[in-house]
Amino acid sequence: MVPLGLRRLMLLLVTLLVLDKAAIGAPWPFWPPGGDPGGCLSWRVMVEANNAKYWRAVPAPCVGYVWAYMGWGQYGRDVGTAADEIAAYAASQAPAGEDGMDAWVMDVDDTCLSNLPYYQAKQFGPYDPAAFKAWASRGVCPGIPAMVGLFRTLKAGEFRVFLLTGRDEEALGACTAANLAAAGFAGYDRLIMRSAAYRGQSSVAFKSAVRRRLAEEEGYRIRGNVGDQWSDFAGDRVFKVPNPMYFVP
Amino acid sequence: MVPLGLRRLMLLLVTLLVLDKAAIGAPWPFWPPGGDPGGCLSWRVMVEANNAKYWRAVPAPCVGYVWAYMGWGQYGRDVGTAADEIAAYAASQAPAGEDGMDAWVMDVDDTCLSNLPYYQAKQFGPYDPAAFKAWASRGVCPGIPAMVGLFRTLKAGEFRVFLLTGRDEEALGACTAANLAAAGFAGYDRLIMRSAAYRGQSSVAFKSAVRRRLAEEEGYRIRGNVGDQWSDFAGDRVFKVPNPMYFVP
Repeated sequence: MVPLGLRRLMLLLVTLLVLDKAAIGAPWPFWPPGGDPGGCLSWRVMVEANNAKYWRAVPAPCVGYVWAYMGWGQYGRDVGTAADEIAAYAASQAPAGEDGMDAWVMDVDDTCLSNLPYYQAKQFGPYDPAAFKAWASRGVCPGIPAMVGLFRTLKAGEFRVFLLTGRDEEALGACTAANLAAAGFAGYDRLIMRSAAYRGQSSVAFKSAVRRRLAEEEGYRIRGNVGDQWSDFAGDRVFKVPNPMYFVP
Repeated sequence: MVPLGLRRLMLLLVTLLVLDKAAIGAPWPFWPPGGDPGGCLSWRVMVEANNAKYWRAVPAPCVGYVWAYMGWGQYGRDVGTAADEIAAYAASQAPAGEDGMDAWVMDVDDTCLSNLPYYQAKQFGPYDPAAFKAWASRGVCPGIPAMVGLFRTLKAGEFRVFLLTGRDEEALGACTAANLAAAGFAGYDRLIMRSAAYRGQSSVAFKSAVRRRLAEEEGYRIRGNVGDQWSDFAGDRVFKVPNPMYFVP
């Protein structure tokens, strides 16, 4: 394996160079030697900031990167940090009334339940409705630990929690409910799935319609909304440029 | 410098371990040895995904990380990727009419013009109104190259481009206009700054009011909005969990 040995040597030299620079500051940073091969770091920031839209699969050069991100700990740390942020916000915004109408909405797939084993097996390939349905029917999605904790925190904080998913109600209703129960999501107020009337509609359209109904017809005050897709929230056409230097309210 | 030598040695060993693992995939990934010291990777994802809210300064353990991110190339790559995404979207959405009423809105600070030299000098400390005003008055903010290019692309695409900034009109109007011109932003349709009536209002309130006026009173169709702060867009209370595996429309 001479190429690997060579690559190791080069990376080692670059590592030492970077460490010399890093010695001026924290034990940071660690960008990959040679910049950002495949543009995977940039691509992931675009995904999370809602700039990358309508992508169909992880770009081929980034499959290894996403595998490592999801499986080696950084995803778990990121989702844990998100749960902490959300719990802190919820704690600062206690229910406005004693009427039990303060509610949070949580998405299901890859918010409460993880589909990582399925996507790993598919090598993060494009959406495959039949295969995904077969996977979801098994009801074995692991709960995402940080989100199980957040769910319990919200319930303990006297909020209603509605689980809202684009999964088809008729085909996947029973297995989804069983999967949620097995994964630690007990005591949610309602599991709202895509009924026949919404089949074929985009996630944005379906979820926006449900939230409107909850708020306007049923009178709930939706205090927060947790999801892994920007379509869980709204459909605004906005573009966010990176800036980790300051926050403008 | 024995500690540095020791640290180098440990990092080298971890690097070789990581390379053994990485050999199964791409030349990726490179998370820092020991996980995510200071939680800086998680923190930056939270910033870009609009989960971290109301922070006042870069967390102390992350100052070195932000310095390196901003100064060593990854920020430039990320903002370039954002510009490419935006230009591709704008090209797919040609002006709807021949009436010259299709418009884009661009923020100024750290979208068109960079304040990086100022924040580096302040070690990314908290907002300091007097010092920032003194810096802005000098009119020497560099243009952000990818955004100069995007601005020209939008203008060439027959869009109106409104530059919208929370900077105070009376104090900073002349120097901001001169700075924009010097940085390559020539031919924008209007520079809209914070007038006395909006002093003390949040950026969300001010910018939303201006966009409403442009759309409802003046009849512009706002086709896109580019900024570095989520307050450039709206004030929705949403929380995004990371997911680089798939995109749901």
